[in-house]
Amino acid sequence: MGRVVVLGVGLTKVGEHWNKSIRDLFVEAALRAVEDAGIELSDIEAVIVGNMSSGYLQGQEHLGALMSTWLGLRGVATAKVESACASGGVAFHQAFLAVASGIYDCVLVGGVEKMTDAVTEDVISALIMADDQEYVASTGITFAGLNALVYREYMRKYGVKQEEIAYFAVHDHKYARDNPYAQYPFEVSLEQVLASPLVADPIRLLESSPISDGAAAVVLCSLEKAKSIKSEGLVEVVGSAVATDILSPHEREDLTTLYATHVAAERAYKMAKVEPKDINVVEVHDAYTVLGPIHLEDLGFVKKGDGAKFVVEGNIEKDGKLPTNTFGGLKARGHPVGATGIYQIVEVVWQLRGEAGKNQVSDAEIGLAQSVGGVGSSVAVNIFRRLR
Amino acid sequence: MGRVVVLGVGLTKVGEHWNKSIRDLFVEAALRAVEDAGIELSDIEAVIVGNMSSGYLQGQEHLGALMSTWLGLRGVATAKVESACASGGVAFHQAFLAVASGIYDCVLVGGVEKMTDAVTEDVISALIMADDQEYVASTGITFAGLNALVYREYMRKYGVKQEEIAYFAVHDHKYARDNPYAQYPFEVSLEQVLASPLVADPIRLLESSPISDGAAAVVLCSLEKAKSIKSEGLVEVVGSAVATDILSPHEREDLTTLYATHVAAERAYKMAKVEPKDINVVEVHDAYTVLGPIHLEDLGFVKKGDGAKFVVEGNIEKDGKLPTNTFGGLKARGHPVGATGIYQIVEVVWQLRGEAGKNQVSDAEIGLAQSVGGVGSSVAVNIFRRLR
Repeated sequence: MGRVVVLGVGLTKVGEHWNKSIRDLFVEAALRAVEDAGIELSDIEAVIVGNMSSGYLQGQEHLGALMSTWLGLRGVATAKVESACASGGVAFHQAFLAVASGIYDCVLVGGVEKMTDAVTEDVISALIMADDQEYVASTGITFAGLNALVYREYMRKYGVKQEEIAYFAVHDHKYARDNPYAQYPFEVSLEQVLASPLVADPIRLLESSPISDGAAAVVLCSLEKAKSIKSEGLVEVVGSAVATDILSPHEREDLTTLYATHVAAERAYKMAKVEPKDINVVEVHDAYTVLGPIHLEDLGFVKKGDGAKFVVEGNIEKDGKLPTNTFGGLKARGHPVGATGIYQIVEVVWQLRGEAGKNQVSDAEIGLAQSVGGVGSSVAVNIFRRLR
Repeated sequence: MGRVVVLGVGLTKVGEHWNKSIRDLFVEAALRAVEDAGIELSDIEAVIVGNMSSGYLQGQEHLGALMSTWLGLRGVATAKVESACASGGVAFHQAFLAVASGIYDCVLVGGVEKMTDAVTEDVISALIMADDQEYVASTGITFAGLNALVYREYMRKYGVKQEEIAYFAVHDHKYARDNPYAQYPFEVSLEQVLASPLVADPIRLLESSPISDGAAAVVLCSLEKAKSIKSEGLVEVVGSAVATDILSPHEREDLTTLYATHVAAERAYKMAKVEPKDINVVEVHDAYTVLGPIHLEDLGFVKKGDGAKFVVEGNIEKDGKLPTNTFGGLKARGHPVGATGIYQIVEVVWQLRGEAGKNQVSDAEIGLAQSVGGVGSSVAVNIFRRLR
C-alpha cells in the first residue's frame, strides 16, 4: 500500500444553482482543485465521480465520461461511484485505493448533485432509493420518516430531550455564517428550530438538511508525486474505510447506534494508527439533528446516550474538546448528497492546512470525515493528518 | 501493486427473469462465485456492484448495501460502480485496485441488470443516458441510432459490405448454442439476420444485442490468499485498465475507431507485459454487429478496415487464430448491461481453466475481455493469464 496525499481541493458554493448544470458544477469544483494542487490537468490519470441520482433526476448516467470530457481529459480512467448519500465518501475511498495500489499517481475525485431543478416529489423519491424499494420505500415512508423513528427511539432509550438534540442545528448554522460556500450562512436560534414546521414527527424543518446543488473535488496523489510538486500544505490520507450495515433500519437490533460507523471507524483508526482521542477536528453526516450526537457516539468520542449533552455543553465548538462541523455541516453548509462526503473532506483539509478563516481550529493535526448513506447503511470514514 | 487472482466465478442464465428481482439475480450469481472459489462468505471483505440503471428502472439505488445485506454480509465495504454499459468492466477494475492496493484480501465483484420488467420506452431512455442528455439524448436519437451512424461510416470508409459485418451475429449465435447461460442458445443464418426488421438503418434487429436480465460475479483475491485456498484453476489478472473518450461520438474526428479502446488496451498490454499476438481468447463488446470488427481492430488484432473480413474468414472461430466471443457475445449470450462486463470475464476465465465445455478453445493461456460504455466513451480492458 502506497502513501496517499491530498494535493488540492475545490468547491462550488452550495445552493440553488438554476443557471448551472451538473457538468458546470463539477467542472468548476474540479478546476479549482487542480489549480489548488498546483498540477496541470494533464497530470490527472483518473476521474472518479460520486453521485447518487443523476440518472433519475437529470436523465444522465455515465458521469465519469461526461465530466472527463468537459474537463478536456481524453483517455483518463473514470467511474461513477454510488452509495446513496455516502457516494462522496465512498468515491473518495475508491480513489484512495487507486493511488494506494501504485497503479495511479494522480486521481481527481469529486462529488456532484443537482437536486433543486426537480420537483420535490421526485427528490423525495430519489432519496428513499437509499433504502429498500421493495420492502420499505414502497410503503410510502420518506427518508425523513425513517430518521424520525431513529429520533424517537433515541429520545426514549436515553431520556434525551428534543431541545438538546435540536441544538445541533443551532451549532451548524453558527459555523455556516462564516463559510462562503454554505447554502444557509446565517444563525438560527433554538427557539426558531423548535418552532419550525414538523417534517416527520418529531423532526422539525430546521432540524433537516436541505435540498441542495453543489460539487466538491479533491486531487489525490502518491506521496512521491505530491512532494515533487509542493513541500507545504500536504495532508496525508492516513486512514480510509467503508462499512455497510443491514440496509433497512427496521431489521437491526438497535435503531440508536449505527453499526457501520463503528466498523468503518475501527478500520480507519487502525489503519491510521490513531484513537478517537487523537482526532482534532471532525465532520459528521448530520442529515438530521439526531444523527449528530449518534455519530459522535458511534465514532467513539463520547459514551452512548451522552452525545447531545456533549454538544450542548460546548465540546464541539471550534475552541472545544472536539471541534465538529466547523463549516456548518449538512444542515447549514447544505447537502448535495453525492457531493457532501467530498465537501466534508475539503473542510477537514482546510482545517489541517490552517485555511479555515474565521472558523479555524487552533493547530489541528489530525481530522476525520464521516459520510453516511441510507440510515447508516453505508458509512465511509476517512482520516487525515497534516504532513510537516 | 499486489498480484490479484480470480478465485471463483458465477453466473445466472441471461434472459427474461420475470420471477426474480435484481437482488435475487445478484445473490444467485454471487453465491455461485463464492462456492466456486472454495471460500466462506465471511472471507469476503468488500462487495462491488456494477449496474447502470437500477435507479431509473427499479427505483433502487444503494445496490452495494442492498446486495451485501441479502448476502448476509454485514460490515463489508461496498460500492456501486457505474460507467454505462461498461459498468461491469469498470467495476471489475475498481475491485482489482482494491486487492492490488493490499488493503483488501478478498473482494466480490458482480454486475447485475434487470431490464425486461420495464416498458421498452423506459429501457430506451435508460440506455441513451450513456450519452449526453443535454446535447444528444434530448434530440430524440436512440442508442441504436448512434451506432447506426458508426455502421454507415464504417461501410463507407472501408468499403465493407453489410453482409460481412452482419456475419458477426451468425458467429455469436453459433457459440451461444452450447452455452447454458445464453439468452438465445440457437443458431441464425446470415439470411435471417439480413431479413430481420430494421432497428435503425442500416442496423437490423438480429444485429442488435437484446434487452436482458442477468447477473455475474467474480471473487478476486490476493495471490497469497488464493494459494492458501486452491492450487489449481487459478487465473491471474495480469492487466487491467480503463480509458475514456470524448463522451459523444459526433465530437470525435473518426467514428470508425474507438480511441478509448486503443488507450485502455495499450495500458493493459503494458501492465500484462504481452502483445496482441500473445492473446489466445477474446471477449469483445458487440452491442451491434459493426462493433465486433471495430473492436478487433482497435485492440490491435487486425488492421483497420479488415476486421469484418477477418471474422468472415473464420479467424475468430474456436479453432481459429483468435477465438472470440466463444459463449455468444452480447448478441446471443445477451446484454444485461451492468452485468455484461463480468459475464465476459467469467467466460474468459472458463476458457483459461479448460471449463468451456463444447466451446473450449485448445490450451488457452492468456485471455482478454473488453467492456464498452456508450459509443466507446468508456472502455475497460482486462487481461488474464492461467497460473500453472
